[in-house]
Amino acid sequence: MNPETVELNLIGTIRTPHITADNIPVQPVGSSDEGIAELYPQFAEGLVDVDGFSHVMLLFHLHEMKKDYKLTITPFMDKQEHGVFATRSPARPAAIGLSTVKVKRIEGNRLYFEGADMLDGSPLIDIKPFFRNVDNRPEAVSGWLENKEADIASKHRSDDRFMERKAIHKMD
Amino acid sequence: MNPETVELNLIGTIRTPHITADNIPVQPVGSSDEGIAELYPQFAEGLVDVDGFSHVMLLFHLHEMKKDYKLTITPFMDKQEHGVFATRSPARPAAIGLSTVKVKRIEGNRLYFEGADMLDGSPLIDIKPFFRNVDNRPEAVSGWLENKEADIASKHRSDDRFMERKAIHKMD
Repeated sequence: MNPETVELNLIGTIRTPHITADNIPVQPVGSSDEGIAELYPQFAEGLVDVDGFSHVMLLFHLHEMKKDYKLTITPFMDKQEHGVFATRSPARPAAIGLSTVKVKRIEGNRLYFEGADMLDGSPLIDIKPFFRNVDNRPEAVSGWLENKEADIASKHRSDDRFMERKAIHKMD
Repeated sequence: MNPETVELNLIGTIRTPHITADNIPVQPVGSSDEGIAELYPQFAEGLVDVDGFSHVMLLFHLHEMKKDYKLTITPFMDKQEHGVFATRSPARPAAIGLSTVKVKRIEGNRLYFEGADMLDGSPLIDIKPFFRNVDNRPEAVSGWLENKEADIASKHRSDDRFMERKAIHKMD
């Protein structure tokens, strides 16, 4: 029953203020926290012209997640269970995160950004520029989240329910 | 100089009408082609409530891409070179594709969708629901693409420049 797997290159590491898994903004739209996508030096050339874009999508490995994901889960933003693919829960079969963040500047192999909602040290898989006319779906209907979306920016932050290692202050 | 890698679970396979790499829509927003995200049966339960969302983001392995990516490339939609992370070129260090598609319906372990811009047989890594108030950036500035975005839906389709195997009719 073990699924097939794929091996992907990593291109660097993400630096953020979030060194424990609780109280992280659950989506970057609710975060003004700054982060740095630090590429391995050999990939720095790939950043040319990225700073012409106001936003990029960061794909990263959810490296601290539990291995024993469930297929139906109760996400941070609801009290009811949903299929994991109807949620953005970090506890998913393929431990990959996606965050759209605001580009601040590039310095060498470092992309400085605003909207850090991932753990410090998250391995970086890819950076994709956000294309305004391609990536927006202004008319999108958001299922179970439809009446909850307004809450996201203001209220919701994570706890450590899905994490392999619990937050440090809870282990004290 | 070999980068580190990460191993991710695959959750299924994407079926599309695109069996060769040329003449595929370069972005799903320009495609009404239908596709099927066919999950391995053990993951079917994770699809519960996905059909409440009008759109999902599919993450998939660009399994037919050349291994010898370049860090600056000329994308389909421009005549000038850019850093690969300022493009959505499929020839990237981590061979991962991202397409936002329209949900049609779910049948068992199959998610039927509109907006197929990937090759038939693409290994499926993840399905993430599109959250209207989280994933839209209506004000985004699109760098080198800024004056070209209107063209995407109407004109641009791929060729096989980045592919390991050339299109079948060209090998005839």
